[in-house]
Formats: sequence, structure tokens, C-alpha cells
Amino acid sequence: MNPVNKTAQQKSVTNVNAIQWQDGILMLLDQRVLPEKVVYLQLSNVKAVAEAITDMVVRGAPAIGITAAFGVVIAARDRLHGSGAWSESVKKAVFDDIELLAAARPTAVNLFWALARMKSLIEACSETQSSETESSVTESSANDDIVDKLLDEAKNIHQQDIAANHLMGGLGAELLTKPCNVLTHCNAGALATGGYGTALGVIRHAHKAGKINHVYADETRPWLQGARLTAWEMKQEQIPVSLLVEGAAAHLMKLGRVQWVIVGADRITANGDAVNKIGTYSLAVLARHHGVKFMVVAPTSTIDMQTATGDDVVIENRAAAEILTFSGKCIAPEGVNAWNPAFDVTPASLIDAIVCEKGVILQPGSEKMSSMANRSYLIDSR
Amino acid sequence: MNPVNKTAQQKSVTNVNAIQWQDGILMLLDQRVLPEKVVYLQLSNVKAVAEAITDMVVRGAPAIGITAAFGVVIAARDRLHGSGAWSESVKKAVFDDIELLAAARPTAVNLFWALARMKSLIEACSETQSSETESSVTESSANDDIVDKLLDEAKNIHQQDIAANHLMGGLGAELLTKPCNVLTHCNAGALATGGYGTALGVIRHAHKAGKINHVYADETRPWLQGARLTAWEMKQEQIPVSLLVEGAAAHLMKLGRVQWVIVGADRITANGDAVNKIGTYSLAVLARHHGVKFMVVAPTSTIDMQTATGDDVVIENRAAAEILTFSGKCIAPEGVNAWNPAFDVTPASLIDAIVCEKGVILQPGSEKMSSMANRSYLIDSR
Repeated sequence: MNPVNKTAQQKSVTNVNAIQWQDGILMLLDQRVLPEKVVYLQLSNVKAVAEAITDMVVRGAPAIGITAAFGVVIAARDRLHGSGAWSESVKKAVFDDIELLAAARPTAVNLFWALARMKSLIEACSETQSSETESSVTESSANDDIVDKLLDEAKNIHQQDIAANHLMGGLGAELLTKPCNVLTHCNAGALATGGYGTALGVIRHAHKAGKINHVYADETRPWLQGARLTAWEMKQEQIPVSLLVEGAAAHLMKLGRVQWVIVGADRITANGDAVNKIGTYSLAVLARHHGVKFMVVAPTSTIDMQTATGDDVVIENRAAAEILTFSGKCIAPEGVNAWNPAFDVTPASLIDAIVCEKGVILQPGSEKMSSMANRSYLIDSR
Repeated sequence: MNPVNKTAQQKSVTNVNAIQWQDGILMLLDQRVLPEKVVYLQLSNVKAVAEAITDMVVRGAPAIGITAAFGVVIAARDRLHGSGAWSESVKKAVFDDIELLAAARPTAVNLFWALARMKSLIEACSETQSSETESSVTESSANDDIVDKLLDEAKNIHQQDIAANHLMGGLGAELLTKPCNVLTHCNAGALATGGYGTALGVIRHAHKAGKINHVYADETRPWLQGARLTAWEMKQEQIPVSLLVEGAAAHLMKLGRVQWVIVGADRITANGDAVNKIGTYSLAVLARHHGVKFMVVAPTSTIDMQTATGDDVVIENRAAAEILTFSGKCIAPEGVNAWNPAFDVTPASLIDAIVCEKGVILQPGSEKMSSMANRSYLIDSR
């Protein structure tokens, strides 16, 4: 991964594409060093893409999915380049690369969703390819055609995600019936998605509509996505924001300072359970205790109707070092253990509203989720 | 404050007195740099003692009280030294110093309790002093006598706190009816008290009795007392400990991994509400939601029968920089705000047991608190 420092050129994160495709190279904004440094990493092979996902250069369920889709474009191009012509063995090699990408992180379903979509296209192209080759289309143009189609699909996934975020922004903002303060957790913003954001998309939209006075943002240990990324996004748009430690959220609610908790999700299961950044479930319990409303904002790509409940989802456990060290410095005695689950499960019963681009589900449950999944895609039908 | 590096001599924190009086100098273990460095600061005047409390060189409600008591000894000695003889004006100057100490931090009641105890002694000594001076006792010996008496009182406060911790350790451990795992927050250990600890005193006792298998410790942002201090104390005694971020506590409880939350307190009001480190109230709500028991361990000096409820207590708001910077490094964008309350209030209704050296209150409330306050002092009566 070659770093490209863009600090000078980079003024506003809101207009940034954290994920960019430029001249056949995938450029990722390195979210690990934000806000201190604005650095893009150039990823030129599929292994680097998988590592960037694992190492959290890019994070946020929709952003991971989009990144992986571009990873498949790189894989197909490189495998074709190494082999000369599309074949079953090239396809197999690309599918192996897809497995590599799928293994990069276990919890966010958008990763598997995007890879499945790319895989379907490869299957479809492979069939066309074999019939076209028989009818004497030149190999080279047919090969380019597959890579081009995959690139178009990756770009579609990216653009559809941005469009979905804008739709969700409007739908979620409608739920705020009067001006209020909100609390958010982690970063479900432009940086976590194709752009604009899920939870922060709603916050952006609602703030613009005069419905949000103040945003409270959990700093979100251990990665500090709230402090580093959400605060940055809010500041860029001059939306008033205050950081707090996770431990202060209950006290904040008790004082009546927030009326809504608005978060994203990494996976929503068939019963409406939401898997999201560790600490989300805690907020949901606290919100219910204090009569604060709880909204989950996520695109269709985050919904996993194949998994019955949140308890069936593999929760990623990350390295203890993420808790035990800070900026390379030890913050705990040597030899001490840490328990570092990256996600938790918020049961549907604690969620007041799930907002996706197809619409809003109040008091989610299996039947409503199923009905939503079968609904036509609003982005296409509007 | 002159630092004295004792790293070489210092092997075990359990046997450490974080607060030491040596040859007329107050030595405080600098808890801000633990566990990386073991450094004692020498405090030779009352202003330095007040600053050490404000700046969290020493923290933990009982430890603050003990430190302030020694601060009064220093104040009396210095004021007498400057004036030559005890007089109303010396007494007034010492009382001004006591006000300075009282203003160092607002929430922990042990500070005011210890200062009131020292003030009473000064009043009593002043009366004796005037009658003795009349009966021609030499001024110098009478002056020494006051300082000696104050020093004895400070040492008593210190020793009684340690004794109370051992008593509470036994009483709290009795509540654990079978081997279990516990979660603790912040540091309510040897470092936060005269020695042995309140919550960690119970954990020490119960672990020794085979009643605790594993301790989970919240890292406790923003000061990381859990990561830096509690983990250190546990490791010193080879009690199995795992750190976690505050956001993970709800997930931990949902998985059934802990049966008790055990914490200290900075103030317990007349109705049984417990004021403690920010994040404690969150744990109490989560514990009740998950059927996990919640124990507060604090000596009598922490009980404030003059204040009706926790909502009447001044909650210290500390500098935003404590959240926005880490080890001198910015972790949030420049110009972003942070909300940094240092404590929260856990209502009595969420507390299963308050353990103090006079005994145990199950399901605390005003009547039980009042009855406890009127009980004879077990330390003296056993």
C-alpha cells in the first residue's frame, strides 16, 4: 500500500470520497490516522485490499462492501493479466480471491452481500464469454469487457449506497417530530459508507431541517471512531457536537439531554436484531430505561434475511492490544489480558425504528422485516 | 512537588502505602503515571497538597480524605512556624487552608468529612491551649502538642480506613454465595483508599476464599483507572483479570459472564443513592436489566446523611482536554467540545447491597441508611 498525502488538497471530508477509483487504482482514505493526517493509500492488488479491510484502513459496513467490490475488479484484472484469457481456472482463481476478501472481517454482512453481487456478475459474464468466444469475438476485447462490467458494477454499488443514504436521511429525519438533541455512537457517516452516511445522513438531513440542536457523540473505544471521525464530520458541516466517554451516556440520558439515539448497523438479521459497534447494545438498554428513542439506520445491503437472529452472527473478537496500547504506548500493566469484542447485538425489542432506503419499520420484528425485504427497491421505483 | 523515583525499591503495590508520612513530609504515589512509572511526590506545603488532589496525583474518595487530613497537619505546622505561637489568627489561617483543601474537589464527601474531623480537633485543642497557656505551660511545647495531636488524628484516619476496608472485604465477600465472576469500574483498591481497598477489598477477600474466578475491569475512560490501576493491583496479587471498554459491559452481562458488579463510592446520600465515577450508573442500569447483582462498598466516611439524594450532590465537571487529548496528543479534531462529568448518581433502587464497615444494607433506602448511621462503630466494638 503506497501512501499518498493529500492533506494540502483536502479541505472538507463531506465532499471527500473515502473510496476512490482512479486510473485502475483503488485509493482508500486511511481512517486510522484521521483526523491528524489525511492520507490515501493506493491499493493495487487484492491482498492489499483484504489487509486494508482487516486492518481498518477502511471501516463501516457499507464502505467495506464497496471496497470489496473494487477488490474483485482488481482480482479479475490481475488474474486475467496473468493468464491471458478468461477461463474456468481464471474464474476459480478470482473466486479464491473473493474468499480472501470475504475472510477479511466476519461481522458486517455488506461485505458478503457485495461479493455475492460481484460473483453473480462473474457467473453471468462467464456464460456469455463462452458463447461469445465460440462466435469468434476477439479474446482481448471480451476480457476487457468482463473487467469493465465488474468495474461498472462496483461503481453502481458505490453510487447506489450514496443514493440510499440520502433517501434514509430524509426518512429518518421525518421521525424527529420536533427539534431535539441526539446521541450517536461510532461513525456511521460519510466515511463509513459510499458517502453522506447512514446515522449521520439522518443527522445531516435533520440538522439542515432545523430538527437537531445538538449532537452528542460517544468517543467509541477502543478505536475512537466517534472522537476521530464523527466529530470531524460534524465539525466540517458546523453541526454542534460534544464528545463524551461511553460511561457518561446514561448520565446524559438521565439529565434529559437527548431524545434520540441514532446509530448505524453492520448487520440486521431476519428478526430485526441489529449487530453494530460494541457499545450500541448498551445504549439501547439505557435508552429504553430513560424513555429515549432508538433508531437504527442501514441500507438494504446490511439486512441479512438468511440469519434468524443476532445471536447467530459471528461477533469478531479483535486483538487485546487495541485496548492495551494507545498510539504504540502501553496503557495497562504488561501481561494483563483484555476482552475485545468489536460488535454487540441489539435485540429488535429495544429498537424503535429501523430506517432503510426502502422505508421505515417501527417496532421491528420478523414479519415486518420479511415484508420490507420483499418490497420493491425505492431507489429504482422513484 | 518534588518527585522521588522509587521504582527500584517498589515491588508490590498491595503492600505500598500510596500515602506516606515520612519525617514531616507527605509522600504521595503519583497515580497519573502508573503503571508506567512508580514515582512519589513530596508535598511540603498545603497548596501543593490541594493541587495534588485537584490534579489527581491522588484519587479515590477515602484516599483524598486521608491526604487532606495530612494537609491540615502541614497547614498547622507551617502557620505556627510562621507565627511563633498558637492564636486565634493562626487558627483562622489554618481554617483558611482547610477551605483551600475543601475546594480541591467537590464531589467525594470523605474530603469534607476528614477536614471536619481535623477542624473539630483544632477547636478542642485551641480551647485547651488557651487554658494551658494561662497556666504557664511553655508555648513551644503546647504548639508541638497541637501539631502532634493533629498528626495522630491524620494517622488514625488513615489506619481506621485500612481497618474498615478489611472489615468490608469480609462482609462483602459473604454476599457472594457461590464462585462467580465480577465486574468492577474505575479503581476502588489499595490506591484509592488507605490500603486494601473497598470494592477491590471485597474482591481480594472473596478471591482468597475461592469465591471469585475472574475479574472483569472496565478500562474507565477518560482517566483509565481500570486499565492503569485496577489491572495493576489485580496482577500484583495474581487475581485473573481482563480489561474491557465500557461499551462492552452490556454484551458481557448478556453473555452471562458476570454475576456481580462491585464498585466503590465517592458519596452515599441519606436515601442510599451512590455517587461514583462516571459510568457507574450505566453499569447499574445494565446490571438490573440482566439480573446481575450490584454492590457498593464504601466506609462510613463516604456516607453523607446531610444530603437527601444523589441529585443534590455537586457533580464535578472536569476539563474537556481529558477526553480530547491522550498522553499529550490530540485524539479529536481541533475546536471540538467534550462533555466531561467525572461522576454520576446511581439511585438506591438499582443497588442490591451497600457494604460499609458497620454492616451490610440490602435494598438500601432512607430508613435503613438512617439506622446504619446510628449504629455503633463496629471497628471499635469488635
